[in-house]
Amino acid sequence: MATDRPMQLGMIGLGRMGANLVRRLMRDGHQCVVYDVNEKAVQELAGEGARGTTTLEDFVSALDRPRSIWLMLPVGVVQPTLDQLVGLLDPDDAVIDGGNSYYRDDITRAKQLADRQLHYVDCGTSGGVWGLERGYCLMIGGDSRAVSRLDPIFATVAPGEGDAAPTPSRTRNGTAPDGYLHCGPNGAGHFVKMVHNGVEYGMMASLAEGLSILRHANTGKKDRPIDAETAPVRDPEAYQYDIDVADVAEVWRRGSVIGSWLVDLLADALARSPNLEGFKGRVSDSGEGRWTVIAAIEESVPAAAITAALNERFESRGLGHFADAAMSAMRSEFGGHAEKKG
Amino acid sequence: MATDRPMQLGMIGLGRMGANLVRRLMRDGHQCVVYDVNEKAVQELAGEGARGTTTLEDFVSALDRPRSIWLMLPVGVVQPTLDQLVGLLDPDDAVIDGGNSYYRDDITRAKQLADRQLHYVDCGTSGGVWGLERGYCLMIGGDSRAVSRLDPIFATVAPGEGDAAPTPSRTRNGTAPDGYLHCGPNGAGHFVKMVHNGVEYGMMASLAEGLSILRHANTGKKDRPIDAETAPVRDPEAYQYDIDVADVAEVWRRGSVIGSWLVDLLADALARSPNLEGFKGRVSDSGEGRWTVIAAIEESVPAAAITAALNERFESRGLGHFADAAMSAMRSEFGGHAEKKG
Amino acid sequence: MATDRPMQLGMIGLGRMGANLVRRLMRDGHQCVVYDVNEKAVQELAGEGARGTTTLEDFVSALDRPRSIWLMLPVGVVQPTLDQLVGLLDPDDAVIDGGNSYYRDDITRAKQLADRQLHYVDCGTSGGVWGLERGYCLMIGGDSRAVSRLDPIFATVAPGEGDAAPTPSRTRNGTAPDGYLHCGPNGAGHFVKMVHNGVEYGMMASLAEGLSILRHANTGKKDRPIDAETAPVRDPEAYQYDIDVADVAEVWRRGSVIGSWLVDLLADALARSPNLEGFKGRVSDSGEGRWTVIAAIEESVPAAAITAALNERFESRGLGHFADAAMSAMRSEFGGHAEKKG
Amino acid sequence: MATDRPMQLGMIGLGRMGANLVRRLMRDGHQCVVYDVNEKAVQELAGEGARGTTTLEDFVSALDRPRSIWLMLPVGVVQPTLDQLVGLLDPDDAVIDGGNSYYRDDITRAKQLADRQLHYVDCGTSGGVWGLERGYCLMIGGDSRAVSRLDPIFATVAPGEGDAAPTPSRTRNGTAPDGYLHCGPNGAGHFVKMVHNGVEYGMMASLAEGLSILRHANTGKKDRPIDAETAPVRDPEAYQYDIDVADVAEVWRRGSVIGSWLVDLLADALARSPNLEGFKGRVSDSGEGRWTVIAAIEESVPAAAITAALNERFESRGLGHFADAAMSAMRSEFGGHAEKKG
Repeated sequence: MATDRPMQLGMIGLGRMGANLVRRLMRDGHQCVVYDVNEKAVQELAGEGARGTTTLEDFVSALDRPRSIWLMLPVGVVQPTLDQLVGLLDPDDAVIDGGNSYYRDDITRAKQLADRQLHYVDCGTSGGVWGLERGYCLMIGGDSRAVSRLDPIFATVAPGEGDAAPTPSRTRNGTAPDGYLHCGPNGAGHFVKMVHNGVEYGMMASLAEGLSILRHANTGKKDRPIDAETAPVRDPEAYQYDIDVADVAEVWRRGSVIGSWLVDLLADALARSPNLEGFKGRVSDSGEGRWTVIAAIEESVPAAAITAALNERFESRGLGHFADAAMSAMRSEFGGHAEKKG
Repeated sequence: MATDRPMQLGMIGLGRMGANLVRRLMRDGHQCVVYDVNEKAVQELAGEGARGTTTLEDFVSALDRPRSIWLMLPVGVVQPTLDQLVGLLDPDDAVIDGGNSYYRDDITRAKQLADRQLHYVDCGTSGGVWGLERGYCLMIGGDSRAVSRLDPIFATVAPGEGDAAPTPSRTRNGTAPDGYLHCGPNGAGHFVKMVHNGVEYGMMASLAEGLSILRHANTGKKDRPIDAETAPVRDPEAYQYDIDVADVAEVWRRGSVIGSWLVDLLADALARSPNLEGFKGRVSDSGEGRWTVIAAIEESVPAAAITAALNERFESRGLGHFADAAMSAMRSEFGGHAEKKG
Repeated sequence: MATDRPMQLGMIGLGRMGANLVRRLMRDGHQCVVYDVNEKAVQELAGEGARGTTTLEDFVSALDRPRSIWLMLPVGVVQPTLDQLVGLLDPDDAVIDGGNSYYRDDITRAKQLADRQLHYVDCGTSGGVWGLERGYCLMIGGDSRAVSRLDPIFATVAPGEGDAAPTPSRTRNGTAPDGYLHCGPNGAGHFVKMVHNGVEYGMMASLAEGLSILRHANTGKKDRPIDAETAPVRDPEAYQYDIDVADVAEVWRRGSVIGSWLVDLLADALARSPNLEGFKGRVSDSGEGRWTVIAAIEESVPAAAITAALNERFESRGLGHFADAAMSAMRSEFGGHAEKKG
Repeated sequence: MATDRPMQLGMIGLGRMGANLVRRLMRDGHQCVVYDVNEKAVQELAGEGARGTTTLEDFVSALDRPRSIWLMLPVGVVQPTLDQLVGLLDPDDAVIDGGNSYYRDDITRAKQLADRQLHYVDCGTSGGVWGLERGYCLMIGGDSRAVSRLDPIFATVAPGEGDAAPTPSRTRNGTAPDGYLHCGPNGAGHFVKMVHNGVEYGMMASLAEGLSILRHANTGKKDRPIDAETAPVRDPEAYQYDIDVADVAEVWRRGSVIGSWLVDLLADALARSPNLEGFKGRVSDSGEGRWTVIAAIEESVPAAAITAALNERFESRGLGHFADAAMSAMRSEFGGHAEKKG
């Protein structure tokens, strides 16, 4: 399964994602030059066959022209790295941002690089910790010349056709069936990845809510206090089920309409920890979800489920506190209602 | 301002609402017979001019036929009280349920009472702790004969035209401009009150969210951690406002489109406690909000804002925990993301 | 792949789902007796090896005792069919309801049948038109004795382990890895299926919203009217993308976090019809979604994403009209705003 | 009621709002210079006592230094007008933007004007077509010197204490009880107005949804088709009410917790048009609602009810079409469901 179009790629950023990308590329016969501020990360990959470098200058010198450089960095580090890097490059070199940058920054950065005859390619990369084996789904934005030149890299990083059967009605060619897609000019790649993550929020919330409803299907067995502050369970006899949610996640993996990788992952998590012990339920959001909702608003299209999922994450972190206190204050004012203890 | 149609009314349930109803009725010249399991509550009102009774039997005997009896009881106590009471009554007596019963129970109860030639009237009562002075907005369901007979009671309890200027375009007669309305057959009164409370949830949530957005308008002044788990504030310079929400609530009371009694109450609460100290933000729901959403669903009409408000109350009480934990578990599975500390 | 535990099953209801269940059972070596009010449907399956019957009485007589009967009927027809059928059965016979009945009806029906020493099994069946080949995911409720006896049937109908790799952390036994699960006593099967469909609503909405955001990523190219009734696009240069949503759906099938059967289906639909020509966008809901939301409410757990998806379906059918008109009326009142033409 | 601090004000923009502001100011003893591109509007106000001007240059010359100029213009016209105007002004002149500008533009504009030693004041103005009589609620941002100098203008435009009783717990001074408030530095005024309008969206949606639920309380009287695509009404006997929503809006005006100006307006609209004839239900949004939601997202605070209201407006205008079609396409794929006719 080695590539018949071997290339050289420079990788900056050897965290989990960056390191695994390098491994996947080397396995397929590409040559990799690597750099990270963390020297240990460099040494580790050098031990696996990459060429390690210790300064950005070394890194750039070690690459053949026109250079192909992939940045796999936290969002906040991309711009300073780019600022340093750009002065070291030569015309026709190409820089790929494979992280989760905001697509609007891509538009600005691509212009900056174009002024110096450099190519900028934004590449949304999905696959998480599993990508080394499964391959990464790639959503790419940039000028066609650069994207074409980098095709052997993308083809290796992407999953290829893999286990997924061909789409029956599909007649068009292109790379989408191999798991990577040139989505349009700069920013288009991260735009599609942003929306992908927005959809991910919505799907995750839907599954999580469903499991929660199953989990509380025994609510009729429990006593709710009888007072003016508590809505009674109207039909307790209809909520007497002790459902094994780990088994449910497992059965949904096969033949159901909601079968999905997220269900596979849930089944695994619940197999280890049926009550999700160890999770406090503080759900982070790292930007793409909120940007997706903002895009929907600016486009004037409804996106209620994705937005609900975003709000749910805010709630999970206690960020609704002031609003909640204001509601309690109003209830106290008009009805003399005191808050109940937790 | 004394009524020219004085009546006798029996009140069962002398909590805050029931006691104030009795006071308002007596002030206007009606005669009240009162009963409560709490003898002290009976004595207090007896001291103010009501005729106190110590058993349900005494209570019933003390009333002239056809009797007019108002129940002002916690939801869970209505049915047992009714079961006891019904055997003591005579044909053509009328029982008003002035609490927050589910309208579906009204339908059942009205039938039970009709079998014994008794009248059942459901009466949604809004006004909270302020009703003694302001009057109570009444939403009434039942057969026309009973509702007409009780009109002097309703007219006294309701606010009357009060400070609210007449609706310019209104040409119809009826009692709505006096603050009480016969909405339809049994259940209609509590149905309208249920929806009233659903609207109240939505309005409260809208106001609370708005205040929260104002309160956090200085978010750009604060450092957010820079890591892959935290979305950065993109334009911190646009979130540098320290807004005095107590002043804002006060200014909104006059001339604004959102001017409302709830804003009046918020202004008062914030005048006393600008940071809402003392509120944990655990917002109860006592049934009407959830019943409103269920009605919307069964009618197949969208009610997204009211539903959002209901969900927000559930979130405020930590009831989303399992769903949140499931989202964290998925993030851990696909991305190796660990939850952040609070 | 023929079963080593062949059984006899009677199927009532030979629509698409019922007929395919029979075919899948016969292929695996089970013997089927079939009945439908539509004689042609009976004849067709008789031609494929089933034993056709023309009256319910014949149907029942053709089955060996203890009988195993599967109903695959529209929700509204189950109860009348059951009423007719029950009188013809003998103690220890078992009836499976494989349709989308409300789980609360299962509780009632199971009691009715138990009174006659009959077993009632509720079985949520997911898989749609693809189940004949892929198998059906089965969520089963009922007493253990009946469910065990029917195991060979369920094992054949379900997908089996199929293409889905085993869940790595799973150590427990049971049938979930084979795609069917005894979820609990009566109603539990349809309860889990109901929630499954609720999750399905949320996942579908999330995907649909995402595609819509992609589809309108060129909104900055279009002129919006400049008037007081229209929010301007603030950054038109950020919305200049013409994204091929069919290609995006295809690329998401491989290696992405949102990979799922629904994405597979979307890719196929968009391959045939990239602009979704031919769909008016009137999205039906057949009950499970609304019941899921009602269950969440009665359990007091937030389910905002699933609820948003349900509301979106109501909106898609124009059911928000009166509310929308009320909003327009208010805007007209306070601001003199006239509605814009479509 | 004439002011004891008469000032001169120049008004640019004589639409409904601008013209009424001038009238209210003149009634109270202020002197007004007016300008509009529409000469008729100028003449009309000249006929009522204002000094009309026909060019921006004339307008500026007619004002005494330091000048006080109020812009009451459509959002899109503010910047071009300002660009023209600024060159004609002298140090210490002040410009008020009283329209619905985005607060972020205020920040930029204030800096531009400050560079020329001009004062910029942003002033959110609520009150709609009723403000001439009721006064306008003013939310003001800018430097304290300019805001103080303009105080006599704001005091006249605002409602004053009016009918609203003093807030019982309020002990602080300030102008909020008179209906105008200096909220903070530039942008703060429009920020608070933006959130005000966001709250308005949420309150309007809540009321509209409530009325819709009442309106459809007779849904059990109607036949729903019995087919697999339609959820049946489970308890038709519970939805048999023909509720007069005009009467309900009227009764809610008095003594209820949701009493508000919006309910007053609804009661009036429904008194004229009980079925809201003449409204198509296409609800515009002019920017503030979407900006409020974006602010909530950037501040990481949940605002689910306001967001729901915004989405509802998008839905009302058919902007969910592509998403809805995608849901129909998925249903067709997995279940062979055909869309129902409208």
